[in-house]
Amino acid sequence: MTRFALTVEFDGRPYMGWQRQHHGPSVQAAIERAAHAITGEEIAVHAAGRTDAGVHGLGMRAHLDLTRPFTPFRLMEALNAKLRPDPIAILDCEIVPDDWHARFSCIGRHYEFRIVTRRAPLTVERGLAWRIPAPLDVAAMADGAARLVGRHDFTTFRSAHCQADSPLRTLDRLDVVAEGDRISVFASARSFLHHQVRSMVGCLALVGEGKWTPEDITAALEARDRTALGFNAPPDGLYFLRADYP
Amino acid sequence: MTRFALTVEFDGRPYMGWQRQHHGPSVQAAIERAAHAITGEEIAVHAAGRTDAGVHGLGMRAHLDLTRPFTPFRLMEALNAKLRPDPIAILDCEIVPDDWHARFSCIGRHYEFRIVTRRAPLTVERGLAWRIPAPLDVAAMADGAARLVGRHDFTTFRSAHCQADSPLRTLDRLDVVAEGDRISVFASARSFLHHQVRSMVGCLALVGEGKWTPEDITAALEARDRTALGFNAPPDGLYFLRADYP
Repeated sequence: MTRFALTVEFDGRPYMGWQRQHHGPSVQAAIERAAHAITGEEIAVHAAGRTDAGVHGLGMRAHLDLTRPFTPFRLMEALNAKLRPDPIAILDCEIVPDDWHARFSCIGRHYEFRIVTRRAPLTVERGLAWRIPAPLDVAAMADGAARLVGRHDFTTFRSAHCQADSPLRTLDRLDVVAEGDRISVFASARSFLHHQVRSMVGCLALVGEGKWTPEDITAALEARDRTALGFNAPPDGLYFLRADYP
Repeated sequence: MTRFALTVEFDGRPYMGWQRQHHGPSVQAAIERAAHAITGEEIAVHAAGRTDAGVHGLGMRAHLDLTRPFTPFRLMEALNAKLRPDPIAILDCEIVPDDWHARFSCIGRHYEFRIVTRRAPLTVERGLAWRIPAPLDVAAMADGAARLVGRHDFTTFRSAHCQADSPLRTLDRLDVVAEGDRISVFASARSFLHHQVRSMVGCLALVGEGKWTPEDITAALEARDRTALGFNAPPDGLYFLRADYP
């Protein structure tokens, strides 16, 4: 058996999310199908993180085990060929130790959330960013974001369906970067709760719109109560950027 | 009668191009249909340039005349509402003098051509860039590009269907800008021949791949012969950026 680590890019628009679902297409199922087509084996693919329906991946990491020998390059080429026409691409493939696990070995996860502030609908970026029809106060958003960095109980920013044992997470980075009518929020942590990035961005947008003050972010965090959440941002703007391993 | 100038963004993927066609959807027809829905009038929309099928617009300029009074803001909002779900957006609208013409008053046109160099297929950018599976020699491409700047007979880089009276054009800018695996070619001129940008980029890609030398660009230009063209780049990566007016 050889374990291969994959770096995966995907357009989340046609999928129910990363994880295999009974009721619709998923990125995981598409890659497992491609791996089965190549090897004839039933292959399980494990990823660094599960993404929601409509969320994109630019550098998701995943692994799979094969009994047949492959060079990483040949496996990558074969997977990309079999994945057509799905908007999923294997950007990199390498052999890793048998105890390397895309999810359990991962020590850092990085997301970007892209916002476009303008009245007009999106065209080339439709489904690829969150359009907000008015300019946002970026300095206020950055103030609000800084209040979430560190180790906190993120119950307010956690989906009711979150399966994590604990709502405690250490947020290493939450930066708001603006250029013209584009605003990106960069979030980094060892791990995130379900919906955490979208929930944080949704509340930061309220701050940017002036509907919340930066202090309201602190109050929402301290409430440790999902009903204190202001807004959950749509999946369109969210990208899984990369994962870190020791 | 009031003349309105529009700034238009569109995703070219679903269209036969800007210009109204009998055999398929066009950006022009979609905007004319939206204007008709708002006013009940038969409206003709004129643009700074005609784009090919699959070519995108980020800041196309166009104009139309209305007999009913509108504020520019209300017209823009109404057009955007009626254009749904077409991936076409009116970014700006202003009243201009009756002799202002989106095409004939235009004194500068700016395009960007986006290339992504990698083996893996595109996902979120599919149809939005030209993927070339190997790294390109950007310095050689820049050398080749510099040979095309200035006033020349661009017959080699002109479609057989080009309707312009003269193959003489003055290319003001042809810059090759690279960042990681992304390469953009920026082209500016008062006007371009049909397929000129795609033809120039196609030959520059040959230079980047090492199949042509920069000197081959000079030879192709001096041949003044369409059969001397190396390659016509696909429309996917081409964006009409903006148009200049006095």
